[in-house]
Amino acid sequence: MTTPLPQFYDLITSGGEALSPWCWHARMALAHKGITVERHERCFTQKQELIDKGGKSFPLLIDSDGSIHADSMDIILHLEESRPLPSLFPGGTATLAAYRFMHRYVQTILFPTVVSIILVDIPDTLEGDDKAYFIESREKRFGKSLAEVCADRDTALKTLSVQLDPFRKAMANGGYISGDAPAMPDYLLFGVLQWARVVSPVQLVEADDAIAAWMERMLDLFEGLGRTAAARG
Amino acid sequence: MTTPLPQFYDLITSGGEALSPWCWHARMALAHKGITVERHERCFTQKQELIDKGGKSFPLLIDSDGSIHADSMDIILHLEESRPLPSLFPGGTATLAAYRFMHRYVQTILFPTVVSIILVDIPDTLEGDDKAYFIESREKRFGKSLAEVCADRDTALKTLSVQLDPFRKAMANGGYISGDAPAMPDYLLFGVLQWARVVSPVQLVEADDAIAAWMERMLDLFEGLGRTAAARG
Repeated sequence: MTTPLPQFYDLITSGGEALSPWCWHARMALAHKGITVERHERCFTQKQELIDKGGKSFPLLIDSDGSIHADSMDIILHLEESRPLPSLFPGGTATLAAYRFMHRYVQTILFPTVVSIILVDIPDTLEGDDKAYFIESREKRFGKSLAEVCADRDTALKTLSVQLDPFRKAMANGGYISGDAPAMPDYLLFGVLQWARVVSPVQLVEADDAIAAWMERMLDLFEGLGRTAAARG
Repeated sequence: MTTPLPQFYDLITSGGEALSPWCWHARMALAHKGITVERHERCFTQKQELIDKGGKSFPLLIDSDGSIHADSMDIILHLEESRPLPSLFPGGTATLAAYRFMHRYVQTILFPTVVSIILVDIPDTLEGDDKAYFIESREKRFGKSLAEVCADRDTALKTLSVQLDPFRKAMANGGYISGDAPAMPDYLLFGVLQWARVVSPVQLVEADDAIAAWMERMLDLFEGLGRTAAARG
């Protein structure tokens, strides 16, 4: 009997581009460990299918042993435990602790800033029910229109530049946020900037920013995995 | 010939309490490595003495070999290079990169919030010329009175609680920001909270906050080194 491939449920735009930052975290982690998955492309309005399978939202990983991993952090920790090498957290518990720090920073501080720049552009990448669902659910979540969420992009871009500075400092140490080679902290920021790259024409960082050069290197990883989703900008 | 002890210049209040967050970073790093220093207590108005010795500001370390290390990051990197064990960055380059991230986060995001809570309390810990120097130099730096910098403490305390959340997540991994045992990332946050503890009666975190329990453990380290400076609260 052949072991079934892990099943990975990914979120796409109506044009077929993988967009979710959290899905990209997981995809990069899978690629880092050289794990081949059967990838299922799903739209926003197909989320219920993931919930029916035991998931919560995008991404969902059902591993070869049938175990269900229902958000990106769960997926990442499961991959690290089940296939320790190459490690997503080289350096051990201290690095995992630092990753939890960075992850929370991205979730609560950096991500909301990026939202206030690109949210209004997302409906243009969606069609029909998906577009209606996205607008309605986000207007409900934020309590205002998407245009109002993104009403002051110029200020948000300046805030973002400051908020990216800790990442710039980290990569000054060896070219990557993780030091000499990319690891989970790099995939963390990559996911967010990749999301922006796919859904919005706005350039989040200037061309001469160290982050821009790093992003190109990240897009080159794993035979250009990140470039399989087209940039909108 | 006996090797001279490293010379460490530390900043104190008029009451003799070591207050500088950056000096505390370096002191905790020295203690972590078990390095005995000759410690020189100096006031704000004695800064020129440090500059004359080749420093920039507080802290200043003149090592046994005569080498001069003129800010806390320089001191820390020098200690790690000259006395590798026990490491301040267990896990190697990935952990050092993560530390640079956290350090920048503290410098540019968390520290300014703490300033907007406690700055106005600092003159009460100073006397005479030191007090006058502090008020004048800070009013010039901020372009307003210290009371104006701290005009909305309640909002700043709420902001701080959110900004501490990445640290809470990191310490959930093993009790310390660095995982299972304290290391430089712990001394980083400790320095800032210790500064607040010494100069201000305001409690920055609630008693039931995980940060409060962690701070007590940090104050116990190295035979209660942190407790050698009295709390003002």
